[in-house]
Amino acid sequence: MGEQELFDVTFLPDGVTVKAPRGESILEIANRGKIHINASCGGEGVCGRCVVELKSGTVEADPGLFLSEEEFHQKNIRLACKATCDGPAEIFVPLESRGDASFFTKAAQADEAVSAETLDPTIIRTTLELTPPDNYDNVSDLDRVAAGLAAADIKDPDIDFLAVKSLPDALRSSNFKIRVTTNLDIPIQDPEAKPRARIVSFDPYEDDETHYALAVDVGTTSVWARLVNLATGEVLPSVADLNGQIAFGEDVISRIVYAGKKDGLSKLQGLVAETINNLLGRLEETYPGYRKKTRLVFAAGNTTMSHLLAGVDPKNIRLAPYVPPVASWPTIRATAAGLDVDPRTVLKIFPSVSSYVGGDIVSGVLASGFYQREELTLFIDVGTNGEIVIGNKDWMTCAACSAGPAFEGGGVKFGMRAAPGAIENFTYDREKKRHYLGVIGKTKPSGICGSGLINIVAELFRVGIVTKMGRYQEDAPLVRSGEDGLEYLLSPAEESAGGKDVVLTEIDIENLIRAKGAMFSGYQTLVEAVGLTLGDLERVIIAGGFGKSLNLENAITIGLLPSLPLERFLYIGNASLSGATLASLSGTLWKTANEIKGKMTNFELSETPGYMDKYMASQFIPHTDASLFPPRE
Amino acid sequence: MGEQELFDVTFLPDGVTVKAPRGESILEIANRGKIHINASCGGEGVCGRCVVELKSGTVEADPGLFLSEEEFHQKNIRLACKATCDGPAEIFVPLESRGDASFFTKAAQADEAVSAETLDPTIIRTTLELTPPDNYDNVSDLDRVAAGLAAADIKDPDIDFLAVKSLPDALRSSNFKIRVTTNLDIPIQDPEAKPRARIVSFDPYEDDETHYALAVDVGTTSVWARLVNLATGEVLPSVADLNGQIAFGEDVISRIVYAGKKDGLSKLQGLVAETINNLLGRLEETYPGYRKKTRLVFAAGNTTMSHLLAGVDPKNIRLAPYVPPVASWPTIRATAAGLDVDPRTVLKIFPSVSSYVGGDIVSGVLASGFYQREELTLFIDVGTNGEIVIGNKDWMTCAACSAGPAFEGGGVKFGMRAAPGAIENFTYDREKKRHYLGVIGKTKPSGICGSGLINIVAELFRVGIVTKMGRYQEDAPLVRSGEDGLEYLLSPAEESAGGKDVVLTEIDIENLIRAKGAMFSGYQTLVEAVGLTLGDLERVIIAGGFGKSLNLENAITIGLLPSLPLERFLYIGNASLSGATLASLSGTLWKTANEIKGKMTNFELSETPGYMDKYMASQFIPHTDASLFPPRE
Repeated sequence: MGEQELFDVTFLPDGVTVKAPRGESILEIANRGKIHINASCGGEGVCGRCVVELKSGTVEADPGLFLSEEEFHQKNIRLACKATCDGPAEIFVPLESRGDASFFTKAAQADEAVSAETLDPTIIRTTLELTPPDNYDNVSDLDRVAAGLAAADIKDPDIDFLAVKSLPDALRSSNFKIRVTTNLDIPIQDPEAKPRARIVSFDPYEDDETHYALAVDVGTTSVWARLVNLATGEVLPSVADLNGQIAFGEDVISRIVYAGKKDGLSKLQGLVAETINNLLGRLEETYPGYRKKTRLVFAAGNTTMSHLLAGVDPKNIRLAPYVPPVASWPTIRATAAGLDVDPRTVLKIFPSVSSYVGGDIVSGVLASGFYQREELTLFIDVGTNGEIVIGNKDWMTCAACSAGPAFEGGGVKFGMRAAPGAIENFTYDREKKRHYLGVIGKTKPSGICGSGLINIVAELFRVGIVTKMGRYQEDAPLVRSGEDGLEYLLSPAEESAGGKDVVLTEIDIENLIRAKGAMFSGYQTLVEAVGLTLGDLERVIIAGGFGKSLNLENAITIGLLPSLPLERFLYIGNASLSGATLASLSGTLWKTANEIKGKMTNFELSETPGYMDKYMASQFIPHTDASLFPPRE
Repeated sequence: MGEQELFDVTFLPDGVTVKAPRGESILEIANRGKIHINASCGGEGVCGRCVVELKSGTVEADPGLFLSEEEFHQKNIRLACKATCDGPAEIFVPLESRGDASFFTKAAQADEAVSAETLDPTIIRTTLELTPPDNYDNVSDLDRVAAGLAAADIKDPDIDFLAVKSLPDALRSSNFKIRVTTNLDIPIQDPEAKPRARIVSFDPYEDDETHYALAVDVGTTSVWARLVNLATGEVLPSVADLNGQIAFGEDVISRIVYAGKKDGLSKLQGLVAETINNLLGRLEETYPGYRKKTRLVFAAGNTTMSHLLAGVDPKNIRLAPYVPPVASWPTIRATAAGLDVDPRTVLKIFPSVSSYVGGDIVSGVLASGFYQREELTLFIDVGTNGEIVIGNKDWMTCAACSAGPAFEGGGVKFGMRAAPGAIENFTYDREKKRHYLGVIGKTKPSGICGSGLINIVAELFRVGIVTKMGRYQEDAPLVRSGEDGLEYLLSPAEESAGGKDVVLTEIDIENLIRAKGAMFSGYQTLVEAVGLTLGDLERVIIAGGFGKSLNLENAITIGLLPSLPLERFLYIGNASLSGATLASLSGTLWKTANEIKGKMTNFELSETPGYMDKYMASQFIPHTDASLFPPRE
């Protein structure tokens, strides 16, 4: 055999051509060519974020789990991680696959772009070229640096003592030309005051200007991390993993309970730190040595996750009147949270509004940009603890809805997380009186994920098998009596992965109705509290992982989302991570995040007059008040 | 036998009467009566600080080491630790024996008194009585406290994260009435700016107002510590011990060298921490539980000791051009220096002027008060590294003199520290051609301490046995030829503790002349550098342990001190500890200390024109220029 043949693979719109051998994935080829393509799952084909368009030539690929027939065959969309080189090709990398540029585009619509020109991170590096000491000028190293900093308008900074220890060697290894890294803390009570400056490190001068921040989204279920290049403003691809705390409960309440046990708090803190540290290790593979150039971590998470990360006992979060220890976090040392970074790195945690409207929501609102716009907006993060924000540039109210675990597969007989084997799509053929299942991973079904549950119930309601009350028509096909009452047979044992009949019970439907009703009555309460109606909502922004696979029409059908024209809906993905990214890039936006926190009026729904009535009225499909859900064309 | 008879012992001027049995020491009786009497040595009879006056009645006592015949017999002075109850008595406790009030009296002369009324420590406690949360007001604990603090004019403080962790329980254990402890850091570069406030702890409210600061003097040889009650301004008796680092060298240079060895730095830091921790343990016996009420430690030490305490490598201190890493220290956590205190306690270290004029001198100048006075003053701390400061309220210059170890018994054949067996006093009887020795502890002599060396040489010079050149008259009695040349027999073997002849060699005298000459030419250089002469000195303040046993006339005789009327001299004891005490009591004085540091112009004597000539001219007894030492009446 001769040398292996290499093909030209050209990436558009950049026009970068990379030579590649047959069999290499488009993702790997792009990486070699420094073309960033989102691949949260690390190229495992399970996140569906690395979509590219084949413009010419051929690649070897199959539709996989995430691409529809239409996308694959008519639009020539491929997953970069699953498509391999088969000859010369032109590949278009759309905006939404480019390092979350998708988000930034949307943010830009909201006048919220951050470009390299407007970079103003809360951690600044100052290069000082100092005169080396001699017999006639032998003031202390720190005094020499302080004079240089004062000349650079950093007067009387606070100084992290860790920085001092390495100062003498830093000065002398680069002939008194050094880089000083200063953390700026923005005064919250007096935003007009100068930021509080604190020196965090002294490093020998190097020509390389690169330095990074880490943006982290600490979710109850999954944790995301990415690097942000503070020298260029470049946002680098994110990595994600399940939160290691999940072994101690799927929701925040069970975590809080566990934290109250002996060593529980430090164990949970250790687990989330370990999860983040694993992600940091994965970033090291792509960006070796980045830790030496990183002095800032921005983390966004719900109130409980923030406390567990910081190691503060969250017990009062679940006790009335639901007072969290901390809403606005002081800057802390990242190693104090167990993070495996340079010990001089600071950690900033997004402020929470209340015990159940956390920093992830503040971060998400920041990322969405709606706080700057005129339109009346509903921001919604669907989950066990669903959070809702309503408002515009002038005002914002928020609330948390205790939806229960149905959206995440909990409290549902065959409920499961969105993973291979989960029924996600469901179509009923009225003529043939049978259904078709869409199963993640195209395997035999073993259960139902949250979005599958919505899709199934919506379809069964549309075809009349499920009633407005959430009950089965007793005589409908595939409806039978089971041990928990009536149930619908989704997949008989012989066609199912577990060798058991997979069914949907009336109790499951009841749980879904309870969950969607909690969300609906929640935002309905907020809207009406300001004298408006749901029809006034000009935009609905859906954030969070659950939204990705949500079928909007089905969600409206069951009464989870308000009945509005589809174009008013916008899905913005992991807005919490996006907000942490923005804050990493810009102190102005970090200040904005704190202003958003201060501006949001929190409603404790259980204490809000009218909420319970609305909740009761929502316990139907789609709702007891038909006028809220007029027929849709 | 019946019950033991008890006598009335009355302490004046307080007029407190304490019942005491025969045999109990006056010091013990005073302690029971809460009358503070200085006893740095812990009642061992070796520090001589606990002098009291017997006004009436009897006690059992002997003059001991520290009292002259006149003091004992005519003035009825006793050492409280060595005098025991023998019947009813009236005891007068003079100011200088009362918890270092002596110092404060002198400081008061310099308009520098700190009374309870002018207490303004750098650590403040604020009591907040907050409204407990309810369903309609459930902001976070920290937000609630921040609002309370803002109302108390503490806006946007920095917050030590350690404090946050205990906040929820502190609030709830005292129904939301709490004590907030705030550290204030004074901006050095912009003294007009507001102090930087940092919350260090939240504690449940208690009725007891007592809280403390710890003042510590970290000397190369000994370490002193005392508590200061910040609620009342009361200064409590000090405790002292040898610096545990002494096993690794007696002077700062040998410590710096050791710090450069593997683990040397952390070992030395650990040793000084252990020394301080032992003292803290001793304080615990008298003030049980004080650590819970202590959030501030003020430490003063020379530049090397400060670095070793803070754990910063001091290597550049001994390398030209002698640049210390740090002169003005950031506030650090006391536990970072290894101190066994509440983890939320902060440590403030006195600023140094240069590598060899350290925080102990700045602290001493603060304590002396001369920086506020018109008189031209020489401040002198005699030791291996002698430090000198000259100036007044308008200007100050300073320098360090590398005197060598002679004053501490080093480089002297039979040199030793001032401890039992050391010859301290020496009188020569011209008629009988013999001498009388004063030995510490009244034992057989085993060596010569620093002050003894000065006294011996001065007396031998006066009687003509030692010449102006520091040589022996060959034919003088007791002068003989030894292995190191001519020597004077102080004590023959049969009368000595070690069974060897104790002698003073010409080399020993040479070393003393070198040492005193270094000091003399040092302050002479500083005085002349500003166009003045030694005769212009209106006051000479002697600080440090060495000064205590210094015979002024003898020190003038050998040319160590300038020839001035005795009333111009003032001995102020451990001024470094006194300065740390003052700074503990008053932020204004702490600010002053930093101003003093900034105001002092440091001379590197070896780089100062004329110094070497002056040094050479000083290598005689008392000096080559006889006009500097005119005959004294």
